[in-house]
Amino acid sequence: MQYLTDTDMGLDLKQVNRAVEAAFADHGKGLVQMPPKVYITLPDGDFRTMPAYLPSLSIAGVKIVNVHPNNPLKGLPTVMALTIILDIPTGQPIAIINATRLTDMRTGAAGAIACKYLSPKKEVILGVIGTGRQAEAQVKAIRQELTITEIKIWSRSSEHIRHFADRFMEFPCHAMSIENVCDCNVLVTTTPSRVPIVMNEWIHEGTHINAIGADAPGKEELAPALLKRSRVFVDDPIQAIHSGEINVPISHGLFSQSEISGTLGEIVIGRKKRESSDEITIFDSTGLAIQDLAIAKIALQHGTTIKLPFP
Amino acid sequence: MQYLTDTDMGLDLKQVNRAVEAAFADHGKGLVQMPPKVYITLPDGDFRTMPAYLPSLSIAGVKIVNVHPNNPLKGLPTVMALTIILDIPTGQPIAIINATRLTDMRTGAAGAIACKYLSPKKEVILGVIGTGRQAEAQVKAIRQELTITEIKIWSRSSEHIRHFADRFMEFPCHAMSIENVCDCNVLVTTTPSRVPIVMNEWIHEGTHINAIGADAPGKEELAPALLKRSRVFVDDPIQAIHSGEINVPISHGLFSQSEISGTLGEIVIGRKKRESSDEITIFDSTGLAIQDLAIAKIALQHGTTIKLPFP
Repeated sequence: MQYLTDTDMGLDLKQVNRAVEAAFADHGKGLVQMPPKVYITLPDGDFRTMPAYLPSLSIAGVKIVNVHPNNPLKGLPTVMALTIILDIPTGQPIAIINATRLTDMRTGAAGAIACKYLSPKKEVILGVIGTGRQAEAQVKAIRQELTITEIKIWSRSSEHIRHFADRFMEFPCHAMSIENVCDCNVLVTTTPSRVPIVMNEWIHEGTHINAIGADAPGKEELAPALLKRSRVFVDDPIQAIHSGEINVPISHGLFSQSEISGTLGEIVIGRKKRESSDEITIFDSTGLAIQDLAIAKIALQHGTTIKLPFP
Repeated sequence: MQYLTDTDMGLDLKQVNRAVEAAFADHGKGLVQMPPKVYITLPDGDFRTMPAYLPSLSIAGVKIVNVHPNNPLKGLPTVMALTIILDIPTGQPIAIINATRLTDMRTGAAGAIACKYLSPKKEVILGVIGTGRQAEAQVKAIRQELTITEIKIWSRSSEHIRHFADRFMEFPCHAMSIENVCDCNVLVTTTPSRVPIVMNEWIHEGTHINAIGADAPGKEELAPALLKRSRVFVDDPIQAIHSGEINVPISHGLFSQSEISGTLGEIVIGRKKRESSDEITIFDSTGLAIQDLAIAKIALQHGTTIKLPFP
């Protein structure tokens, strides 16, 4: 058994996008085993347990990931993760991977795959709401799939905006109000908001939105009227209903399961697609265990390795 | 973060019994978070993911455990396990424990606690069906709670019986037919059987049975008529219905959820008990994540430690 860390160093983001895309294709074809993630609530956060088995990639395992919003005050990341990989023929644990940064990257990759298929065009103005680690991961992954001509940014903190813009010097980056950020081709929302911060009337026809921030019951970023007006795709229906962007509108009776247009897996295998240049599409991301295994498969070839005695 | 192995070495089995008993008390009082374990099926076995949080013991984490029946042919144990412990205030993984032997021990401890409360008397003839690692763990844990005057053993292999008896030289051990083993005060069944091997008419009144072997859909060791005639206690109703001794009779309509007499947690807190010296009691064990955390809490003080970089 091995412990691996720093596996994110030098990963080829195009390769990550392709691996995550392949995992979603298997998901669309019903070829994966992936029960919904299981939540345990702790006093100051929660942790989620995410087992899966991807036969076509020959990988099986479990990601364990926490979300503790006050961790930065203690000098720790909000989100930290381990992925445990099991040998398929024997069930023996063979690798434990520090998956904190891989978690950011695989979520970025899902957003990039959604953009590849749902963006109204290949050359886009990108709107980014929130400037944390996930906002950065989304831009890094999306730029592998689309040509970004400008980034419009909103964050509560002007310091964070400066920081963010410094990381993407190759693009013109402009800070502005949320309303003005929404005037773009592809919008990415990455905040931990519990009230809608993107209003329906701010989004023009043809926009694609990656709704990334809502990943637990009670979280939402988009006005329910915007969901009603759009075609909403999810990564996994059960997880999205429980904890994705649609969870609050569904619990309030403002959106129903039957209004989900399809899954990202169905899009990747061509069963669903953007139907017109003026429809608004939304990808509601909750994060799937198969994304973690897809990136783990690549990560196993990278990083620092420590051998551990087992069994 | 630390990796710990050999943590079973020198563990005080009385202390383990007390810790597991305390965990069941919390379970009986509804003070734990423990979703049902999640199964993933692999080609030659399965693995189970078991997250939990025990506030009173201040421990949270996940056990990952496989069951691959053909592993011994490959020189590996059938069951192997890791437990990942998270820091409650921050969610950071702080320990990864080699939990293969701890899994045996915590299952033994649950059987011992069931015997402590349900055995018809304190001085017993113990019947043991199956002579694998779990049979050994049951006897080692039960002898902390009861005085064993004789062990009656059945196994398919006379070599396994000899091996088993060699480990318990302090007790008179006698090999015999299953029917004759059943003539005892406390019976422990630990086989992977998928058909009943213990017949109703072989069990006399007043016997207590630890039904340990059935831990996955399709497995059963006891005749359904015996279940109907007995008071059946479970560790967790949802898990027992899915994968415990009662799973097959329930799926065939021969036993119903309403016939479960209670949980081991309810017994430990005194809400349920053996009502008469002549009733037959059965403890249907599936194995709970809270048992794994209770023993992990003790194991963290033992064994060989390897420091790992994280986050």
